[in-house]
Amino acid sequence: VRAAMAGWARAVRGLLLDVSGVLYDSGADGGVPIAGSVEAVRRIKASGLKLRFCTNETQATRENFVKKLRGMGFDISVSEVTAPAPAACHILKERGLRPHLLVHDDLVPEFAEIEKTNPNCVVLGDAAENFTYGKLNEAFRVLIGMEKPVLISLGRGRYYKETDGLKLDVGAYMKALEYACDVQAEVVGKPSKRFFESALAEMGVPAEQAVMIGDDIVNDVGGAQRCGMRALQVRTGKYRPSDENHPDVKPDAYVNNLAEAVDIILQQL
Amino acid sequence: VRAAMAGWARAVRGLLLDVSGVLYDSGADGGVPIAGSVEAVRRIKASGLKLRFCTNETQATRENFVKKLRGMGFDISVSEVTAPAPAACHILKERGLRPHLLVHDDLVPEFAEIEKTNPNCVVLGDAAENFTYGKLNEAFRVLIGMEKPVLISLGRGRYYKETDGLKLDVGAYMKALEYACDVQAEVVGKPSKRFFESALAEMGVPAEQAVMIGDDIVNDVGGAQRCGMRALQVRTGKYRPSDENHPDVKPDAYVNNLAEAVDIILQQL
Repeated sequence: VRAAMAGWARAVRGLLLDVSGVLYDSGADGGVPIAGSVEAVRRIKASGLKLRFCTNETQATRENFVKKLRGMGFDISVSEVTAPAPAACHILKERGLRPHLLVHDDLVPEFAEIEKTNPNCVVLGDAAENFTYGKLNEAFRVLIGMEKPVLISLGRGRYYKETDGLKLDVGAYMKALEYACDVQAEVVGKPSKRFFESALAEMGVPAEQAVMIGDDIVNDVGGAQRCGMRALQVRTGKYRPSDENHPDVKPDAYVNNLAEAVDIILQQL
Repeated sequence: VRAAMAGWARAVRGLLLDVSGVLYDSGADGGVPIAGSVEAVRRIKASGLKLRFCTNETQATRENFVKKLRGMGFDISVSEVTAPAPAACHILKERGLRPHLLVHDDLVPEFAEIEKTNPNCVVLGDAAENFTYGKLNEAFRVLIGMEKPVLISLGRGRYYKETDGLKLDVGAYMKALEYACDVQAEVVGKPSKRFFESALAEMGVPAEQAVMIGDDIVNDVGGAQRCGMRALQVRTGKYRPSDENHPDVKPDAYVNNLAEAVDIILQQL
């Protein structure tokens, strides 16, 4: 690993960190930090490297998400987090879109400033228990009733693991609506290029001097590499050994966890 | 229309009729017959033409479905109906598959003879109110837990109309599970070639002497034509004027309704 990274790690000026599966493992009980990650975040901040948290989390507002992470001991603030809902709000305002929301109840406050009457698009997040037959049909009817349906999806993940088992992620419901309405969703969040670029801009580091560290081979690693970044896959979170044979995506290196990634990068500087 | 059909209608020996949208319009109240359809079925039977009902209905057993139609005045019996659930049972037995069912409660009796313990496939129908977040996740977990996931979908419709509005059909949920599990569903029902072929075999008429009459441009018309049949689209049920500009499928003729189709065909004989 060190050898693989020796060539480029010394040029690194900023890190983008995925959160779930890298900093902590989520679950109904709130989740638990991954060993060494609290300390690793602290070491990044002490090193002078730029740092940004880049998450597809849509089950809570950034405020509540950060509060939970701070409760686990992480040095993180709302202003350091790039997340899909605020990015979607930016797009909605820019294009005069009024969303019908199919999202988690706890995410709704992120859209407080957005006009929602007489909707002309549907915004889909990981709605979890709100993915009822009735609410899915309702979102479908709003969408199919539009002359040109606009579907904005907060991520395109296939599934994720919680303490009580695997759950379908927003991408599965996105595919259902795409098929029913013969429309292509616009994805806000990883692996969207625009999303990574806004995270880089907020961090003030060009792509070639930035490294993404994530557990998702497609949405973290593949997405970041397509933006010109280096990307490491951690062997925590949703990582599976079969990821190392992925047909399309090859990380710049594998690391056992965030702590190991930070060790190596800091040694190269 | 008559001119378009004059060349081939005299060779017709059998008719395959779609049911919902051709014989009747479905709805929460049970539905209502489409004007002229009861008499049209009677005339087909009196003519000596072979007749088979070919439906993707999966919200009831054939027994209950036929009972409802007889209640509306249709001359129809269970043995004349080709439907996805019995076709799926045939495949399950043939391949030793034990299904986890995600279907409508009223369809379950069709699978009474099938071994369902320790499932090695998922059978997906239009489960309607059974499409809950919990039951979708359950079917997903069964599927993703298989070494080689087998997903059998009873149809691939995008949506349908009931008296209280549009509803997502089984195809949308099929796409969600396909995406989440990176698997391709096997579709039983229209437009599957095997399904049409078994309807033709049951009727005892070769494809080139059979006509499919349906309201669904893709699943009825396109599917039947790919099997070598002629196919008419009625302007009832889910027909929309935009169907007449469909990029891939062109019916052999359009008719206003089943009664008109039967008028023309019987005149040519």
